[in-house]
Amino acid sequence: MERRIIAVMSSLEPELRKQMRETAAALGFSVEFYEKSADALAAVETAEILFGNVPELCAKAPRLKWASTSFAGVEPFLKPGTFAAEEAILTNASGAYGVTIAEHIVMVALEMMRREPEYREIVRAHDWKRDLGIRSLYGSRITMLGTGDIGRKTALRLRGFMPACITGISRSGRPVPEMDRTYRVDELERVLPETDLLVMSLPGTPETTGIMNEARLRKLPADAYLINVGRGNAIDQKALEAILREGRLAGAALDVFETEPLPPEDSLWTCPRVHITTHTAGNSTLSHTRRFIVEMFLENLRRYAAHEPLNEVVNRELGY
Amino acid sequence: MERRIIAVMSSLEPELRKQMRETAAALGFSVEFYEKSADALAAVETAEILFGNVPELCAKAPRLKWASTSFAGVEPFLKPGTFAAEEAILTNASGAYGVTIAEHIVMVALEMMRREPEYREIVRAHDWKRDLGIRSLYGSRITMLGTGDIGRKTALRLRGFMPACITGISRSGRPVPEMDRTYRVDELERVLPETDLLVMSLPGTPETTGIMNEARLRKLPADAYLINVGRGNAIDQKALEAILREGRLAGAALDVFETEPLPPEDSLWTCPRVHITTHTAGNSTLSHTRRFIVEMFLENLRRYAAHEPLNEVVNRELGY
Repeated sequence: MERRIIAVMSSLEPELRKQMRETAAALGFSVEFYEKSADALAAVETAEILFGNVPELCAKAPRLKWASTSFAGVEPFLKPGTFAAEEAILTNASGAYGVTIAEHIVMVALEMMRREPEYREIVRAHDWKRDLGIRSLYGSRITMLGTGDIGRKTALRLRGFMPACITGISRSGRPVPEMDRTYRVDELERVLPETDLLVMSLPGTPETTGIMNEARLRKLPADAYLINVGRGNAIDQKALEAILREGRLAGAALDVFETEPLPPEDSLWTCPRVHITTHTAGNSTLSHTRRFIVEMFLENLRRYAAHEPLNEVVNRELGY
Repeated sequence: MERRIIAVMSSLEPELRKQMRETAAALGFSVEFYEKSADALAAVETAEILFGNVPELCAKAPRLKWASTSFAGVEPFLKPGTFAAEEAILTNASGAYGVTIAEHIVMVALEMMRREPEYREIVRAHDWKRDLGIRSLYGSRITMLGTGDIGRKTALRLRGFMPACITGISRSGRPVPEMDRTYRVDELERVLPETDLLVMSLPGTPETTGIMNEARLRKLPADAYLINVGRGNAIDQKALEAILREGRLAGAALDVFETEPLPPEDSLWTCPRVHITTHTAGNSTLSHTRRFIVEMFLENLRRYAAHEPLNEVVNRELGY
């Protein structure tokens, strides 16, 4: 019987399609490509493997053995009833976004510290001012809330800027080589007052929802910076806005929000010292990221064909 | 006889004044502080040492032994007749600006590659678009035209982003540890076509004037990026603007210009894909930079008092 892979991804580069088709054929699989999930509805019924961020197709695939999402976040796959084939394996692409998200984090950290939005307004007026005081990553105390792929790749890049220290915070507190030390999340309260830059890269799980509540936000120094690239609901967004409007915090760069898209009338758009990006940190149009996602999938396909354990398997109870 | 140091620097922090005063006293010197050079005119007549970027005072100081400028660039000190005391030593603070200029370079490189100016316009409209294709430092071929303090500190920071290579170009071609290889400037033509990002951090000298002329600019790949933080006259600015308006080059981040301030009516302000900053890369209001400048001066003062060779002595013929 034919072993079918249904791949759903818009504008997938021809050379990546070719690479997928050839590797799959060599392993005994056929691949069909679709631009969007609606087009794949009929085809998915007899699929063994699904590739793409298409949770809505899992309910239509009773013979599914493995769903490989091209995203890092898996919340839409965790709802009861998502899978017609309950025992199907779910893997994600959390390793693929680290490079581009780490570059985003370094960029927005420097933009905030160097007051780029204010200088941009000066340039917009063809003016020539140079006297706004700026700050530096050099000597800064950096706390990484989240020590996964994003946190580690970011720490690797921040190291060259010679910060005073890079402290990781994670559920387990397990050390990672890119950071000076790692604490368990129950030490967070103690670390926040000693933080100049807090970088949040947490997955969306019940444990991380609201982890930066008002009390914890207030433990940050009044001139600290905050960056969130994980999930919007990890921060109490209303409390953060109120704190910024009070004059606390030197800046907050937010790429994720409690509701996305952020509604056009939301008052956060015009909140002082907020640096909004439209969930672009992990932009998968970066060709490197798409190539990495496909290569991760093909390595897993080789493992799958050989009955070896897959990489990046999602624990559906933990949610990552 | 009293040995007098005249220090001219606006808003110098009280703790840095105290540090200067105490160190100088211990070495047998007195320090007088002035906000601007006009205030110091009378005092400079019997000064042995001058600290600050005040070339105009050198002609009024016949007993001067050492002028320590707080800037990196020394062009204004090189004109004949600048010094009343012809044999006075000139030192600069070129080592002090590397940290902040390197941070500027990484910031603008990422802003251009991630199309931050275009995304900023989307955010300004409270819109939610995410589909502009972006690029990455990861795997990029970087050429550093200038391998001095700025080039080296920048290379150190860029390394963590895992570029394909970092190639240095300098007058001597002497290897530096932060770069993969270094070539002499006569190899520039050969390296330019293999460059994704060209970073220029050259001092202003007769040799560097116009070094990136039209022919060389056209040797860069059509989708290359260019950053200049050295001196504006190192680039043929009109040729660069014409090339950008033709559609060549993915971006040019310019912090320095042939004429500064850039005149408000200059067409460069509105040239596509130009990222203008107002000579802020080496902003000395960064407290780290000011502290570093003072510490460099005091280390040199110790050497001066002990009749040891000074650091950062400027060769007035080479101009750096």
